[in-house]
Amino acid sequence: MAMKLLITSGGTTEPIDAVRGITNHSTGRLGKLVAEEFLKHQHEVTLVTTKSAIKPVATDRLTIIEITTVKDLMAVLQEQVPHHELLIHSMAVSDYTPVYMTDLEEVAQAEKLDKFLTSHNGEQKISSQSDYQILFLKKTPKVISYIKEWNPQIKLIGFKLLVNVSKEELIKVARASLYQNKADYILANDLANIGPNQHKAFLVSDKEVQPVDTKEAIANLLYERLTKHD
Amino acid sequence: MAMKLLITSGGTTEPIDAVRGITNHSTGRLGKLVAEEFLKHQHEVTLVTTKSAIKPVATDRLTIIEITTVKDLMAVLQEQVPHHELLIHSMAVSDYTPVYMTDLEEVAQAEKLDKFLTSHNGEQKISSQSDYQILFLKKTPKVISYIKEWNPQIKLIGFKLLVNVSKEELIKVARASLYQNKADYILANDLANIGPNQHKAFLVSDKEVQPVDTKEAIANLLYERLTKHD
Repeated sequence: MAMKLLITSGGTTEPIDAVRGITNHSTGRLGKLVAEEFLKHQHEVTLVTTKSAIKPVATDRLTIIEITTVKDLMAVLQEQVPHHELLIHSMAVSDYTPVYMTDLEEVAQAEKLDKFLTSHNGEQKISSQSDYQILFLKKTPKVISYIKEWNPQIKLIGFKLLVNVSKEELIKVARASLYQNKADYILANDLANIGPNQHKAFLVSDKEVQPVDTKEAIANLLYERLTKHD
Repeated sequence: MAMKLLITSGGTTEPIDAVRGITNHSTGRLGKLVAEEFLKHQHEVTLVTTKSAIKPVATDRLTIIEITTVKDLMAVLQEQVPHHELLIHSMAVSDYTPVYMTDLEEVAQAEKLDKFLTSHNGEQKISSQSDYQILFLKKTPKVISYIKEWNPQIKLIGFKLLVNVSKEELIKVARASLYQNKADYILANDLANIGPNQHKAFLVSDKEVQPVDTKEAIANLLYERLTKHD
C-alpha cells in the first residue's frame, strides 16, 4: 500500500539583514535520491526543501514545499507531520539565528552584554564602515524534538552530521539523538567521509548499526528498512 | 574587434566552520545576461562566479572560473585583470568574514574584546550547546579598489546595492564609489526595486545618470555604452 512520506532536504538560511544570511551547506542531493527511491515504488512524497537544493523531477505523487528559515520549517512541519506516516529529516538545520549586529566599539562600551540579546537592527543593510563587527546569535528551536509531539505515530528518521570524529563518538552522539528525539533511526555521518563519489554513514537504531558507503546505498537502505514490516 | 571582458556574478560565502557560512545573496542572473549579450556579439568573456549562481550556456568564447570566498576572488582577479580590457563587477562581495565564534560566557568574562579578534576556532563544527553565541567578524579587503592598480587601462564597471534609500542618496553613494575606485561607471540599484519582473537601476558615470528598468535593459545598456567608441 502506498505510504505518505515527508522528506526534508537542503540547508536553512537565517537572515542577518536583507542582503546577507547564515547558510548551512547542503546540496539536497541525498534527500533527492531518497525521494526518488520511494517515488519509484509508487509512494507519495512531500519534500520540504530550499530554493537552491537539487530536486527530483516533478511527478504527480511528489509535492514540493520550499522554505528558507528554521521558523518556516517549524511552521510547515507542524502542519504536515500529522498527515504523514514517515519523516526522513535530512535537512541541515541552522542551530543559531542572528539577533543583532554592531561594531566593536558599541560592545566594548557596554556594561553588560545582555542588552544586545534583545536588540534589533533597524537598518535593512547593516553599515560596513567599521573594521570589526560583532554578531549576536541565539539558539533556534530543535525542530526534530517536536516531531513525535505533533504525531506520536509517525516513523522518524533523523540525521546527525559531525566533522572528523571517531566511529565510536559518531555512534554515541547518534544514539543520544535517537533517544532524546524518540527517533526510530538516526543516519549518522561525518563530513570528512563525504565526497563526490562516497558518502559513508551508519544507520543507527536501538538495535543495529548498519554501515553504508554511498548516497544511493543510503537511499536503498532507508527504503528497505522502512517498507519491510517487522 | 573582439574584446576580452571579465565579468563577476553571484555572491561570495565566508565560512564560519566546515558546515556553515555567511552568504551574500545573489542569483547571478544579471551577470549571466550581461555575459550573454557580449558573447552574442562575438566578444570573449571570462566569468568569475560561484557554484550556485545561474550560468550562461557553454560556448568556446566563454571561460568560467568558480570561486567561494573574497580571498579566492582577490587571487583570481589579481591574475585575470591584467589580461582583460573590461571588468563588469556585478558579484555581491561579502564585506565581513568570520574570525572567531564563542559563547556569551567567554565574552562576558573577558576584560578586553581585542583578544577575540585574533582567536581561532580549533574545532571544525562549532559546538551548539549554549543558548547564545557571539561571532566576531573582520572587514574583508575592498576588491574593487585594487582593480585599477592591477591594470590602469582596464575599463571598470562597479555595482552598488543599497536597500530602501532615496534616488538622490543612491546616486550620491554611487558617485562616491566611482571616484574612490576610479571606476568608469557604477550600476546603482536598490533592493526594494528589484523583483521577478523588474530591476530598476541607474548607470552612473561622471557625466550621466541613465535609468533602466529590467535586467535585460541593463545588459543592453552596458553593451551599448562599452562598445561605442567615444
